[in-house]
Amino acid sequence: MAKEKKLVEAITSMEEDFAQWYTDVVKKAELIDYSSVRGCMILRPNGYAIWENIQKELDARFKATGVENVYMPMFIPESLLQKEKDHVEGFAPEVAWVTYGGGQELPERLCVRPTSETLFCDFYANIIQSYRDLPKLYNQWCSVVRWEKTTRPFLRTTEFLWQEGHTAHATAEEAEERTEQMLHLYADFCEEVLAIPMIRGKKTEKEKFAGAAATYTIEALMHDGKALQAGTSHNFGDGFARAFNIQYSDKDNKLKYVHQTSWGMTTRLIGAIIMVHGDNSGLVLPPLVAPTQVMIIPIAQHKEGVLEKAEELRGRLKDFRVKVDDSDKSPGWKFSEQEMRGIPVRIEIGPKDIEANQAILVRRDTGEKITVSLNELESKVKEILKNIQKEMLEKARKHLNSHIYVATNYEEFRDIVANKSGFIKAMWCGEEDCENKIKEDTTATSRCMPFEQEQLAETCVCCGKPAKKMVYWGKAY
Amino acid sequence: MAKEKKLVEAITSMEEDFAQWYTDVVKKAELIDYSSVRGCMILRPNGYAIWENIQKELDARFKATGVENVYMPMFIPESLLQKEKDHVEGFAPEVAWVTYGGGQELPERLCVRPTSETLFCDFYANIIQSYRDLPKLYNQWCSVVRWEKTTRPFLRTTEFLWQEGHTAHATAEEAEERTEQMLHLYADFCEEVLAIPMIRGKKTEKEKFAGAAATYTIEALMHDGKALQAGTSHNFGDGFARAFNIQYSDKDNKLKYVHQTSWGMTTRLIGAIIMVHGDNSGLVLPPLVAPTQVMIIPIAQHKEGVLEKAEELRGRLKDFRVKVDDSDKSPGWKFSEQEMRGIPVRIEIGPKDIEANQAILVRRDTGEKITVSLNELESKVKEILKNIQKEMLEKARKHLNSHIYVATNYEEFRDIVANKSGFIKAMWCGEEDCENKIKEDTTATSRCMPFEQEQLAETCVCCGKPAKKMVYWGKAY
Repeated sequence: MAKEKKLVEAITSMEEDFAQWYTDVVKKAELIDYSSVRGCMILRPNGYAIWENIQKELDARFKATGVENVYMPMFIPESLLQKEKDHVEGFAPEVAWVTYGGGQELPERLCVRPTSETLFCDFYANIIQSYRDLPKLYNQWCSVVRWEKTTRPFLRTTEFLWQEGHTAHATAEEAEERTEQMLHLYADFCEEVLAIPMIRGKKTEKEKFAGAAATYTIEALMHDGKALQAGTSHNFGDGFARAFNIQYSDKDNKLKYVHQTSWGMTTRLIGAIIMVHGDNSGLVLPPLVAPTQVMIIPIAQHKEGVLEKAEELRGRLKDFRVKVDDSDKSPGWKFSEQEMRGIPVRIEIGPKDIEANQAILVRRDTGEKITVSLNELESKVKEILKNIQKEMLEKARKHLNSHIYVATNYEEFRDIVANKSGFIKAMWCGEEDCENKIKEDTTATSRCMPFEQEQLAETCVCCGKPAKKMVYWGKAY
Repeated sequence: MAKEKKLVEAITSMEEDFAQWYTDVVKKAELIDYSSVRGCMILRPNGYAIWENIQKELDARFKATGVENVYMPMFIPESLLQKEKDHVEGFAPEVAWVTYGGGQELPERLCVRPTSETLFCDFYANIIQSYRDLPKLYNQWCSVVRWEKTTRPFLRTTEFLWQEGHTAHATAEEAEERTEQMLHLYADFCEEVLAIPMIRGKKTEKEKFAGAAATYTIEALMHDGKALQAGTSHNFGDGFARAFNIQYSDKDNKLKYVHQTSWGMTTRLIGAIIMVHGDNSGLVLPPLVAPTQVMIIPIAQHKEGVLEKAEELRGRLKDFRVKVDDSDKSPGWKFSEQEMRGIPVRIEIGPKDIEANQAILVRRDTGEKITVSLNELESKVKEILKNIQKEMLEKARKHLNSHIYVATNYEEFRDIVANKSGFIKAMWCGEEDCENKIKEDTTATSRCMPFEQEQLAETCVCCGKPAKKMVYWGKAY
């Protein structure tokens, strides 16, 4: 019993210290381990399996829109990185440089990719000649490196896993369409699969990607009221095409520059899942990404027929990702572990249940206990998993909606930042000076100009000049 | 027509220049492109999709044996790499070193992983305490970097994709069992899925992995009679465990060292597929790994109903990976492209076929044309794909078996190397001196000591001393 207590006690409560709660969950649920390499983490089986489920589902959605996967080198020669001015300025300070290879100093140093725009552009310049070669809709799954000063598991690490899509189009219209299409694909995925509602919008000039003409973003609200940027989609216009000379001969026989996009999501999504759904017993996983959806825990498993029955139920639930915990730990310990790991449904089955031809199903998200006749086990499990998925999204949406505040003047704005946590909707004049002032005064940043604009006031919340856009502001991870 | 000729003419015939044929196929089938990064290649959609199919099938086979996936950092601190003496000696000369990060010189340089034994050992030392924590059966899919002087697409590149499995066990017996289990899993996969027959055996001391107690290998024979090492599985004994202090307390409460294995296969397998199955029209893909299994090519597609019929057939063949080539190229050009890309089955459908309620199916591997009634299209396609898969393995096995020679003395050995191409079976005394002499005299190396040993002679083929093992020798990629 001492050990069982320890497992549960070891988590700081989220009300007491949210950051420590997060770190505890990440470690106790065995999602990651720290490594000997500064700022890099080890993704353990429980963590990596979530990423595999994200990959599988996202990849299928990409392919359904015509995207194909490729793999580009992990190194970028310095001269290639420097071809697009804004891009190199944005990334050069945070890259890692390879200077020696095969025992010799390299004639030109290579950076470990922080992102692969430059490699894709170089490639596209080679393979695109005619309008017949367009569009190119390529994506890659890989890891990238950005030298971060302070790191947190999943949210900000020196190396992280991601996908990066890079497309080339004949026209500006097509590029814009693809940029927005992928943003909505991301948001739909997050809502339908991760049960995380998203604010969809455009970044301000200040916050856009290095080298992009426009950056779109999806922003989520964590349990502590802080915002998390969950995915971005960039329209590059023909800026990179001009820098890398990516031209095609059009139907009219004229040489034209292509228009490009890029879009990415990362293992940061796992951080979002933890911080949106988790509770003081640990992780809570939406069924669609849970590596294990159902954990069967035999009660009094030494008694005749119990383990056999547990195995029989497992066999019957083969349409789900299901396991039996037949280790020699006590049931209480197993419950704690299953809760810590966020497994959506627990099935308790003991001698009395067997006698009554029933099992106890326990929902991880609500703790609700449901007695189910074994005759309808499969259909009940299916129904409960579906309900959990749906209700987790509803709960998260309720949390989001109840943490969006409106400020029409700067006093209100500062008051909300000081006393509440969440998003603040407020009007903005369009000037970077106001973004800077707001950040300095409050640490809140402009998260996005949402697609769904409202006219909350006539004037900028900061400077009082005429307002141009409604912006979501917030403190962010 | 000029352009069509070009596509076909552009391939050197394999009899004329096998190396050039290989390079031509790799480029013309659009598997790879060269990049601006020395020794690194770009995997294009046609190439990467083969790797995806390999991954999917291998990953499922790994998981069926209890293996779980993880992800380790791509960097290894120099001090960590140096912990196991033989290992660092083997890899240090060919690694790439990161010396700058975030604008500053690093206090300790980091190598880009050439393989991750050291990281896994460091991790295992952290997470393994008790016999209850064993075995650990972890694998990762990633890319690794080895600074190669001369490179060839898929066969030897500075960066390549692979999987690396790393396991830790309580006993030496379990580790040996897992080492051999994974080798056979690899060989079965290659035979069943890639249609490439394998010689299974053990490497000599000279050829074993840096730091391993024993290395097992699967060796394939390419069309030109050269050998290709397709996968290896290593038993580390407790060597790494001692270097990294990976101990567990056993049931008897004593501290013991774990026993470890590692095993890997790489994108090199794609090179093997090309060189075993390809012909002078290009790539020939086994159906089970072909990204597209069936290409429907409409004939006279401008005529009424032809494209509609092609689409209808595609819909009916949804159990297969099927495409319609409705581009504005000529049918002849499309045939050449489908052949170059190695798509196993082509379906030709034109107005006359539609009238006769039939289609022409053409096998890529044999060129055989089969007229099929549209009423039995699905079952015929299924049957033909199955036959192709089976007969490609049989053909490759016939080629392998007819290129294995026996030498009982050194004169025979040298004569075979000089005048034939393939494997040479010959007895060996077990001394590295003889391996070195044979390599110097003939450029042939010991490929493996096969599990199925034969007593071909009493004496070593090189020095005449008593023989200990039968060895497969050959020139290798």
